[in-house]
Amino acid sequence: MTADIFSEKHQILFYETDRTRQVTPGMLVNILMLASQDQSDALGITSQKIHAQDLGWVVTQHLLTIERLPRLKEQVVIKTQATAYNHYFCYRDFWLEDLAGHTLAKMHSIFILMDQQKRKITKVPDELVAPYGSDYTAKVERIAEPEKFDAAKTAQSKDYRVRFMDIDANQHVNNVHYFDWIVDSLPEDFLITHQLKQMNIRYKREVHYGELVTSKVDEPITAADSGMLITHHQVSVGQQESCRAQCLWDKIV
Amino acid sequence: MTADIFSEKHQILFYETDRTRQVTPGMLVNILMLASQDQSDALGITSQKIHAQDLGWVVTQHLLTIERLPRLKEQVVIKTQATAYNHYFCYRDFWLEDLAGHTLAKMHSIFILMDQQKRKITKVPDELVAPYGSDYTAKVERIAEPEKFDAAKTAQSKDYRVRFMDIDANQHVNNVHYFDWIVDSLPEDFLITHQLKQMNIRYKREVHYGELVTSKVDEPITAADSGMLITHHQVSVGQQESCRAQCLWDKIV
Repeated sequence: MTADIFSEKHQILFYETDRTRQVTPGMLVNILMLASQDQSDALGITSQKIHAQDLGWVVTQHLLTIERLPRLKEQVVIKTQATAYNHYFCYRDFWLEDLAGHTLAKMHSIFILMDQQKRKITKVPDELVAPYGSDYTAKVERIAEPEKFDAAKTAQSKDYRVRFMDIDANQHVNNVHYFDWIVDSLPEDFLITHQLKQMNIRYKREVHYGELVTSKVDEPITAADSGMLITHHQVSVGQQESCRAQCLWDKIV
Repeated sequence: MTADIFSEKHQILFYETDRTRQVTPGMLVNILMLASQDQSDALGITSQKIHAQDLGWVVTQHLLTIERLPRLKEQVVIKTQATAYNHYFCYRDFWLEDLAGHTLAKMHSIFILMDQQKRKITKVPDELVAPYGSDYTAKVERIAEPEKFDAAKTAQSKDYRVRFMDIDANQHVNNVHYFDWIVDSLPEDFLITHQLKQMNIRYKREVHYGELVTSKVDEPITAADSGMLITHHQVSVGQQESCRAQCLWDKIV
């Protein structure tokens, strides 16, 4: 069996872009996730129904690859496919294309189902994934993890207090808000002259309302194979690591 | 002459809502402003063209009134009309309606044209407003200003560092981001139990990348006429007031 591909169109709104008139990385992930939300709604497995069972879908890892960030007012096509699942993990692919069918971005994501009361991972019931046509797989998929952040190599560190509007229906910081903390840890002159090409982001621990988050990044190093710049990131609350990420950046010419 | 009303449809996306599954006040303003951006584009006076002349439209005041915040996936109609202008000020109205034509929100806004080099207000050339069908008025409109914030009555104070993604094409913090600072200054239990009904927000001074912003609010007081709660707000950088706001809140029953 092959899982169904769900597809929808979207036009880039001005508040999805920054001063470069391109979509921000966080908004890119929001836009991709639109398709999975709408697929779930179309199948009648809305997030409201999931939450009514005291459950919630939680992202544990995204591997995002960007060919080109969509521009203000551009028409894009979002596609998604819930490819496979096992007892605890659900694997999903996303694509963003322009109207000519060129790929702008891809994302591979891992979701778990969280028990909202116990705040713990719970087994995925077949009836919650069967409608997507996902294949059951006994194997747990291994995606490369972002390299461990070496605190001794911290080049920049910024603090953020979690706001009311950072919290989603799972009562924790939405996975997309980490993208802003990670991108903003880099200096303005770097962000204006470089384009994010890839982010591997692994979520380790929930972050809650009011907590003080620290976002650290090391000095960019040049990748031997591609010549692109690599940055390593850590988001933490006190001594506890909440999230780790590794990014690839290309110079804007 | 009466200015043209420009209208468009929009469906509420999940990332425009918070954990209450309603649009956040900041996103509500973004959604309203979609119509003015699209009207300008339709008339061929894009913000790119304005910026190419080293100019930029800047909001100096919004008076936002909310009947009901739109909900996740709700279809809404946005309407706008550039009602009037004089040498320095442009007045614009916005409405948000549901598909049955009921008003969900209204906003009256004042815009000025800023010289991007001098960072100063500049005269509005007729050719930039004539296409909207705006009426010239010699009078400068007087909208009530939010009451002065009394620092001695500060009940809550929170600091925010301006991020890369807060900055818009005018090279300063976009007017909408102030809504998040203002709303988030109030405690979580207040925000969960109250609904914003009105905000009068007056922008006084630009805020730039990297600056540390302080958002202060006083203790809510009960309005004699409506029984709603009034809060006063100030956003400042150091000793300089950047923005002042006055809000009306209704208890959620």
